[in-house]
Amino acid sequence: MALHHVTLSPSLRAVDVPTGTLLAEAAAQAGQELAQPCGGQGRCGRCAVLVEGSGFRRRSSLRLTAQDLADGYALACQTVVEGDLSVIIPPQEQLRRVLVTDRVAARAEVPLAYDPSTMQSLHLMKLALPEPSLEDNRDDQARLLAGLADAGHPSPTVPLPVLRRLGPALRQAAWQPWVVLEQAEPSGPSRLVDLAAAPQRPLGLALDIGTTTVTAYLVHLGTGEVLAQAAEYNDQISRGEDVVSRIIYATKEGGLVELGALVRRTISTLLERLQLRTGIEPREILKATISGNTTMAHLFLGLPPAPIRLAPYIPTVNHPAPMTASELDLPIHPQAPVDILPGVASYVGSDITAGAVAAGLAEAEVLTLFIDVGTNGEIVLGTREWLVTCACSAGPAFEGAGVVDGMRATEGAIEEAWIHSSTFEPTLRVIGGGRPRGLCGSGLLSLLAELFVTGVIDRGGHFKMDLDSPRLRLGQHGPEYVLAWPDESATGRALVLTKVDVDNLLRAKAAIYAGFTVLASRVGVDLADVQQVLIGGAFGKYLNVEKAVQIGLLPDLPWDRFTFLGNTSVRGAHMALLSRDSRRSIADLAARMTYIELSADNAFYEAFTAALFLPHTDIRRFPSVAEVWERENGQRLSPQAAEIRS
Amino acid sequence: MALHHVTLSPSLRAVDVPTGTLLAEAAAQAGQELAQPCGGQGRCGRCAVLVEGSGFRRRSSLRLTAQDLADGYALACQTVVEGDLSVIIPPQEQLRRVLVTDRVAARAEVPLAYDPSTMQSLHLMKLALPEPSLEDNRDDQARLLAGLADAGHPSPTVPLPVLRRLGPALRQAAWQPWVVLEQAEPSGPSRLVDLAAAPQRPLGLALDIGTTTVTAYLVHLGTGEVLAQAAEYNDQISRGEDVVSRIIYATKEGGLVELGALVRRTISTLLERLQLRTGIEPREILKATISGNTTMAHLFLGLPPAPIRLAPYIPTVNHPAPMTASELDLPIHPQAPVDILPGVASYVGSDITAGAVAAGLAEAEVLTLFIDVGTNGEIVLGTREWLVTCACSAGPAFEGAGVVDGMRATEGAIEEAWIHSSTFEPTLRVIGGGRPRGLCGSGLLSLLAELFVTGVIDRGGHFKMDLDSPRLRLGQHGPEYVLAWPDESATGRALVLTKVDVDNLLRAKAAIYAGFTVLASRVGVDLADVQQVLIGGAFGKYLNVEKAVQIGLLPDLPWDRFTFLGNTSVRGAHMALLSRDSRRSIADLAARMTYIELSADNAFYEAFTAALFLPHTDIRRFPSVAEVWERENGQRLSPQAAEIRS
Repeated sequence: MALHHVTLSPSLRAVDVPTGTLLAEAAAQAGQELAQPCGGQGRCGRCAVLVEGSGFRRRSSLRLTAQDLADGYALACQTVVEGDLSVIIPPQEQLRRVLVTDRVAARAEVPLAYDPSTMQSLHLMKLALPEPSLEDNRDDQARLLAGLADAGHPSPTVPLPVLRRLGPALRQAAWQPWVVLEQAEPSGPSRLVDLAAAPQRPLGLALDIGTTTVTAYLVHLGTGEVLAQAAEYNDQISRGEDVVSRIIYATKEGGLVELGALVRRTISTLLERLQLRTGIEPREILKATISGNTTMAHLFLGLPPAPIRLAPYIPTVNHPAPMTASELDLPIHPQAPVDILPGVASYVGSDITAGAVAAGLAEAEVLTLFIDVGTNGEIVLGTREWLVTCACSAGPAFEGAGVVDGMRATEGAIEEAWIHSSTFEPTLRVIGGGRPRGLCGSGLLSLLAELFVTGVIDRGGHFKMDLDSPRLRLGQHGPEYVLAWPDESATGRALVLTKVDVDNLLRAKAAIYAGFTVLASRVGVDLADVQQVLIGGAFGKYLNVEKAVQIGLLPDLPWDRFTFLGNTSVRGAHMALLSRDSRRSIADLAARMTYIELSADNAFYEAFTAALFLPHTDIRRFPSVAEVWERENGQRLSPQAAEIRS
Repeated sequence: MALHHVTLSPSLRAVDVPTGTLLAEAAAQAGQELAQPCGGQGRCGRCAVLVEGSGFRRRSSLRLTAQDLADGYALACQTVVEGDLSVIIPPQEQLRRVLVTDRVAARAEVPLAYDPSTMQSLHLMKLALPEPSLEDNRDDQARLLAGLADAGHPSPTVPLPVLRRLGPALRQAAWQPWVVLEQAEPSGPSRLVDLAAAPQRPLGLALDIGTTTVTAYLVHLGTGEVLAQAAEYNDQISRGEDVVSRIIYATKEGGLVELGALVRRTISTLLERLQLRTGIEPREILKATISGNTTMAHLFLGLPPAPIRLAPYIPTVNHPAPMTASELDLPIHPQAPVDILPGVASYVGSDITAGAVAAGLAEAEVLTLFIDVGTNGEIVLGTREWLVTCACSAGPAFEGAGVVDGMRATEGAIEEAWIHSSTFEPTLRVIGGGRPRGLCGSGLLSLLAELFVTGVIDRGGHFKMDLDSPRLRLGQHGPEYVLAWPDESATGRALVLTKVDVDNLLRAKAAIYAGFTVLASRVGVDLADVQQVLIGGAFGKYLNVEKAVQIGLLPDLPWDRFTFLGNTSVRGAHMALLSRDSRRSIADLAARMTYIELSADNAFYEAFTAALFLPHTDIRRFPSVAEVWERENGQRLSPQAAEIRS
């Protein structure tokens, strides 16, 4: 079969592939990762590349304009190689690895009053065994088990790899071995993790596997403290930016295995970085606790996730049994216990249960709303007495996907925008301080709020095209607002927010607000009675509450009721890594939570429709927003948005 | 580095190796296995090959005569390659694979009154689970476990590989899956082995891993019957013929892994042969039970065996925990439970405990002696009330090793010999009927008895060189008896039994008889009071009781007290595979047996010395032998051998 030579610029990587190879696959073979937020479905248009030569065929060009096609653009996921090709990858489509959370992470505190002797499931101890003789010729295992029984640990299991080292280790230790033992519950079964002639350090790993970001804490299990932390984009991003795209990708042949390998690559990267900072080799880590949403847990475990996205949305497992690192191919100590924390349902995973415990929900005495806005939006409402939870498929709009000039929060992203209320000229804050390349989530949110408050868009999200500003124009996708002219941007093209983008953002914020509404009405409480709003997730860290309320993403409550907690998921994993009590709290909370499936709920659809306006159909829910708008615009807002529908 | 070309005749295999490569290693690389009974120590002389050319260097030539060296013989295990070589491998040193036990095996019977519903630990059942819905959205694992709890199997563990198939399998089965569950004890923990849309056949494997022979029964667990059986030489033989040689080989770098791979190759061969006969693929086998001596168990488990041969002779484990086929790299169903039966000590393994149960020792009402003479000799004495056991390092002399013209029981082996009492001419029975190539165990035993009874050798094993026969002569190794002249043999060389050979055989039989003596005296019984002698092991099958008594290998009891049971080890494994009761009997018996370590016993050394004569120092122990000898020789035997010492 003839091979075709494909070169990729600017990396100058090259690969030879047979006729019919997908361009995205050719790039992957050449070691050049391309963003595929939609999972290679041709829907998102993010893998558009410039192709020189004629040796290719487009299967679909849904997201490309006539001009794009004339310029030579093609979607890598929808184009097959039929001859030698030269491919130019636009800068934004090359995945950049600059994660703000990693660079600016605050030192993590020990999250509880930690007493390892009563709380920790991992035990390190030295045994003094009698030497064998012709009179006492018990086998090595029997001798060891008798010693452990004397130390209060009867009948642990001895895995075969440990058994294989048992004889040499006991003799090397002159019958005084150091032993590592895992016992999840004080009177439950135990398992030998390791034994050696020298003591080992009690080291653990708390891991949060997020759809977008994977976060790792390297923890000293003697003191509980975090020795080092690291965060990195999940390498799976290149195969789909949200969980649904990943699930679709996983159903492709080899897709599940590939996604499993990608997240392991990310974890290996994190472990290498932790080693650079501490000198601790990954194989020294003796225990791991993992939180993550249900899809991430399935992909990590290698469980086919397809049923998660099909009614009635059934995962394979919410409460995985304890495993070992070797069976999970996690490159820490092969016999290290790995605890994947329990979740509630397909769309409320252990990132939420662990996060809720870290946020203090298990002890909340007042009505509390806990939100984790990541790629998905999960919500928990309740007190220590009762909890209801739901998930809103907000989609990745607030992470820059599905938006023409959206991007992640890396260098060149506009992270905040202000609009002048009479000239409608923008002022931008750009990550890194250079020229803007696109808008990240917080930038999109603040821009939308500004456009609304200054009257550039109406409550339905329509641009007021009759305003006197060159920034408002009709673009290829309809009405749009120009944030940066071609000579102001880093790309040489104008940066815009289109009507289509606004609609995507409205749907995202409406989904989350509708979740609040449904949960509150299900249990018969008023959102206004919520005493504290706890916001987890990486997105929450950069959220401007005022603007989030202005667009109706968050309920209109006094600002002092909002608390930003950052990554609650990894903090919950840290707690469970340290304490059997915390571990039990998470399981209890998972069992107690009432899950409400919104996709099957007519009330949700009504609430969603009502929330598609700025800030909401019913302005009485957002008195502070009405006040700001009326001050800026010098007129009263009509109480019902329906009346102003265009 | 320069490579040298080594060709091997008659196979015409060839290989290129660097300077310094052991010839045995070069042959192995070329795929030509060489016998190395002593484990490559240069002691046995069995790997002697003819080398043409000068590109080699002998490190040791202990077992070669000056003539051998002049003829170009070299020991493959002691010779390094230093140039291009042509190597001729004598026929006897090419391992032949003709195992009599496999060809003539009788149909194995179901060894007990088998009721799978109460006895079998493996359960196959069909579940009818409620279909999931938005109202009943339990995860797949919770749904399955609830169904199993309803069926009387609460809380089985679900291994990760099964969890990975769980979602697709449940849906393919339309929520009515067939489940395979293992539960070793009625109220103990259970484990999911498999689940599928269609029922699976209940198939099990009973395996006896012997030092010389590996035997497999493919068993239907519904009826208990043996669907097919197969036996094959243990491929480890090429790395040492007895357990001590294997242990030494295992301590070489990579030796343990290599021995593990070799026995797995043998098992794979057996599984292929069972598949040819039954059409059953190895992966359909859902459970395995394994017996074998302690060293074989260690090598199969990958446990370093070195301490087994060093005082105080401590194995890593006598009672291995249940394992799965995948962790043992056994090519049956990966999740199949694999039960390695419990042994007693380093030299009394589960071949003896399982064999003793199969022989009925657990219920014996009369004083019983159970012997398993294989490469080692293990002995059990007692009744259902009490049992003592020991192991005698008989060595492999009765298997043809350590004897100049010894060989295994394959084509060309003399299996029986008779000596004319006045001409001293031999009559031989040869396996296959052709010209003799050497002597196998039963041939050696019968020849020794004949030489003694006809007066060719005296009670001390000395040849009576003054007898009028050309068959008695002084050879390279001292006095010898010529069994076949060069023109009568298949090798073109004379076949002889030397004084050194006789001494080796005397040591072997004396070790076993001394074992009887010590066990009996330890518990204060007389060997003459033994009511039944049960003989297991492949060797036992071909043993001529009369001749075994004549040389003093077996005690002089009425012949009707002897019973040959063949391979009791695999029959015990078959019983344990079927029945939890039998499995428990074996464990109970292993726990009840009192092990006597002979190497630490002065009484053993005395008894051994006393038994180094034919049939014994004290002829009063062998009245029937005295009678035969006196009839043949026309004179009385002196009661104490010491008196006739030369």
